[in-house]
Amino acid sequence: MNQIITISRQFGSGGRTIGKMVADRLGIPCYNKELIEKVAAESGYAKAYVEEEGEYAPRKSFFSYSFIGRGQDGLSNEDHLWFAQRKVIKELAEKESCVIVGRCADYALSEEPNCVNAFIYADKTYRIKRVAHELGISESKAKDMVNRTDKERASYYNFYTNKKWGDSRSYDLALNSEKLGIDGCVDMLIRFADINQQ
Amino acid sequence: MNQIITISRQFGSGGRTIGKMVADRLGIPCYNKELIEKVAAESGYAKAYVEEEGEYAPRKSFFSYSFIGRGQDGLSNEDHLWFAQRKVIKELAEKESCVIVGRCADYALSEEPNCVNAFIYADKTYRIKRVAHELGISESKAKDMVNRTDKERASYYNFYTNKKWGDSRSYDLALNSEKLGIDGCVDMLIRFADINQQ
Repeated sequence: MNQIITISRQFGSGGRTIGKMVADRLGIPCYNKELIEKVAAESGYAKAYVEEEGEYAPRKSFFSYSFIGRGQDGLSNEDHLWFAQRKVIKELAEKESCVIVGRCADYALSEEPNCVNAFIYADKTYRIKRVAHELGISESKAKDMVNRTDKERASYYNFYTNKKWGDSRSYDLALNSEKLGIDGCVDMLIRFADINQQ
Repeated sequence: MNQIITISRQFGSGGRTIGKMVADRLGIPCYNKELIEKVAAESGYAKAYVEEEGEYAPRKSFFSYSFIGRGQDGLSNEDHLWFAQRKVIKELAEKESCVIVGRCADYALSEEPNCVNAFIYADKTYRIKRVAHELGISESKAKDMVNRTDKERASYYNFYTNKKWGDSRSYDLALNSEKLGIDGCVDMLIRFADINQQ
């Protein structure tokens, strides 16, 4: 049976790096940016649109979302993208073992018994420093990015799933990457997946 | 340096059993009911009062709490108990390595770098079956207990700490005991504590 690990993450927590390292250790692919290309091909939307709208609450807020234009099927562009994304994620999980970072993959695969859903987080101060260092920007700019990105990811997740972003009960395990370290998180995820496969 | 593991848990998730097993494996004491005795001795309150009021939101709700009688120091009985409980937990952690189950120990020890704070949870259906089986009661009665106990623990935690009960960001790791199994949770907790001590 395919082994699937999905990773939701706070911005700057190292979730993407952890996902890549877990996939490398297990010898399976990690889908992150690659997923965007597949969803763009499936949906017909531009890559930039998929990247922005497929995980982040639209700038216009979900309140005004209620009033935006819809097709004859009653669905907005955002809804079409959501379904296309879900379809791509489900097909990937059926095809092969893999790690999927972001894009509410945990929700898309909620009926997969062999799927391990993780949430990676860390203290905000740690994440701001990490983002500033990695992107070579000021801490004040990094702080804005961290705040905005988390808020948008949370709104998108809470709107499209019936779960709550960041609440431990939405996942199978949640790990503090500051406390445990990146390598520690990789170890624990692989251990969890091992136990889950037994 | 002492190694402290605190366990917060949803009712029926097996958190208490996991705490005991982790402590046995590490050869250190596990404080759960024993903590109640120590807090009773410290505070002068009866054990039954400590057991009920030291982890559960009072039946009268925290709204009416605003109007209850207080001593000359402006503190209610609940507040006195909270401080006595915190003192006992801090003293335990200074004295020896141990596992502490419940009682907002994660918050009392938030300044301890060598403390690992875990949250154990599971799907409600699983917990209801587990409680009904363990206590030999009907599933309908177990369901009431699960709902009420979780609600009271959450209210107490949210009121006395500045964190949110069950939100992964309140802990260092959170584990789904249904998905991972009791033994799996024990393994993961010991592994986390090991990494944290390195």
